[in-house]
Amino acid sequence: MALPDAAKLSLNTATTRAQWGLAQAIDGCARHGIRGIAPWRDQLAAMGVQEAARAIKANGLAVTGLCRGGFFTAKDWRDDNRRAIEEAHALGAQCLVLVVGGLPQGSKDLAGARQQVADGIAAILPEASKAGVPLAIEPLHPMQAAERACINTLEQALDLCDALGEGVGVAVDVYHVWWDPKLAQQIARAGRERLLAYHICDWLVPTRDLLNDRGMMGDGVIDLPRIRGWMEGAGYAGFHEVEIFSTLDWWRRDADEVLATCLECHRRT
Amino acid sequence: MALPDAAKLSLNTATTRAQWGLAQAIDGCARHGIRGIAPWRDQLAAMGVQEAARAIKANGLAVTGLCRGGFFTAKDWRDDNRRAIEEAHALGAQCLVLVVGGLPQGSKDLAGARQQVADGIAAILPEASKAGVPLAIEPLHPMQAAERACINTLEQALDLCDALGEGVGVAVDVYHVWWDPKLAQQIARAGRERLLAYHICDWLVPTRDLLNDRGMMGDGVIDLPRIRGWMEGAGYAGFHEVEIFSTLDWWRRDADEVLATCLECHRRT
Repeated sequence: MALPDAAKLSLNTATTRAQWGLAQAIDGCARHGIRGIAPWRDQLAAMGVQEAARAIKANGLAVTGLCRGGFFTAKDWRDDNRRAIEEAHALGAQCLVLVVGGLPQGSKDLAGARQQVADGIAAILPEASKAGVPLAIEPLHPMQAAERACINTLEQALDLCDALGEGVGVAVDVYHVWWDPKLAQQIARAGRERLLAYHICDWLVPTRDLLNDRGMMGDGVIDLPRIRGWMEGAGYAGFHEVEIFSTLDWWRRDADEVLATCLECHRRT
Repeated sequence: MALPDAAKLSLNTATTRAQWGLAQAIDGCARHGIRGIAPWRDQLAAMGVQEAARAIKANGLAVTGLCRGGFFTAKDWRDDNRRAIEEAHALGAQCLVLVVGGLPQGSKDLAGARQQVADGIAAILPEASKAGVPLAIEPLHPMQAAERACINTLEQALDLCDALGEGVGVAVDVYHVWWDPKLAQQIARAGRERLLAYHICDWLVPTRDLLNDRGMMGDGVIDLPRIRGWMEGAGYAGFHEVEIFSTLDWWRRDADEVLATCLECHRRT
């Protein structure tokens, strides 16, 4: 299989969030020749949406996603998602990534939470479509089902897409789905229209924390070329967005070193 | 839904492995009126198989499973599984639980590992059947795919059962499968013949460790009565085997207190 084009790399700013604000991340991408960026909304708010949009445009960066909408099982989901759609529109983001939310506080009703999520996405879909913002459901690893997202497999996310119709697709993050025996089949099922984003990093052995111990591409056990091949085989031609939460390692390093390492490791996977 | 009968409780000895050897666990079950036990093979070896079989029989305990065979991606899998089958036979165990193994050392080939597992189970199935020992494939949580088991959903386990034929079924451990959107459907698919064991504990929020931070029934977010209802609806009438790995909590307590708590919490779930 051909190695990936460095021009496909995008920086999800979670990767440098301990070191850099959004303005620094935009400058960092420009400095390192990274052509895409995916901001998180807390950093976007700190910089200001208009200023961020201006700086991103000035540097010619693609916005491969805005992180994040979702959390439909929390109380303020309606207003929060409305704002997220507006921000994604202002940035010209290729999609709004939905981390859909886990169990409501004190609840054990997983089926009920999943219904709330389906209803919530259906509720925001018209205004997202009107704003030209595709919604990308991100299935999260089952170990995050209780606290962050009760959509946990690509099959489940695609079933939801089928029920919802146009304007919604999926974000495939290798960290969340690499283990899934139905991954190849479901990526093929999704096809180009539903595959809105592709996130990369690696699964470390051992993994020391359920949320913030992701690895750099190549440092773990995920067969990244194989999964990329499935994505490309299904017609995905978009960016490869590196997203590494790493309290113990990458968040402690110099951010320019992190970006240089991302570029180097991306080329091999 | 009716509350569970206390006579259905079985002790998986992992629950008290930090405090007790197998002889003490057998005595503990007898003292607390627990009617089933599932030993681990390291403790069985320490006590001696014949002595353990004698003590278990003398106390009238059912052996709801032997933990464990499997690890088909390790080098010594053939001999190790042969011994495990002999031991399960000697104890009259209701099944031999298979923790199938993860990726071979240095490998990223998950599909290859899964094929090794399928081949391994097929290889040991004839002698297991001859010994009257049902093999129970235990799908493990996806967060343990790399290190412990590359069979990670009930659907995947049942597909393997269908390919293998008679003599093999599944162990349903709520900790590993509670998050699965297809759980109810797949338990129903399994049916009485394939449902060889039912393991209980709870999923804590937050979970501090990927292996050894399980909770007592009722302390987490798993809807245990609902899952038990699905099992019973599919015809399962066997034991409810409590299996709690807990470095930070239950392994630090007095083991008699642990057993009393298991009995009390089992009655409510």
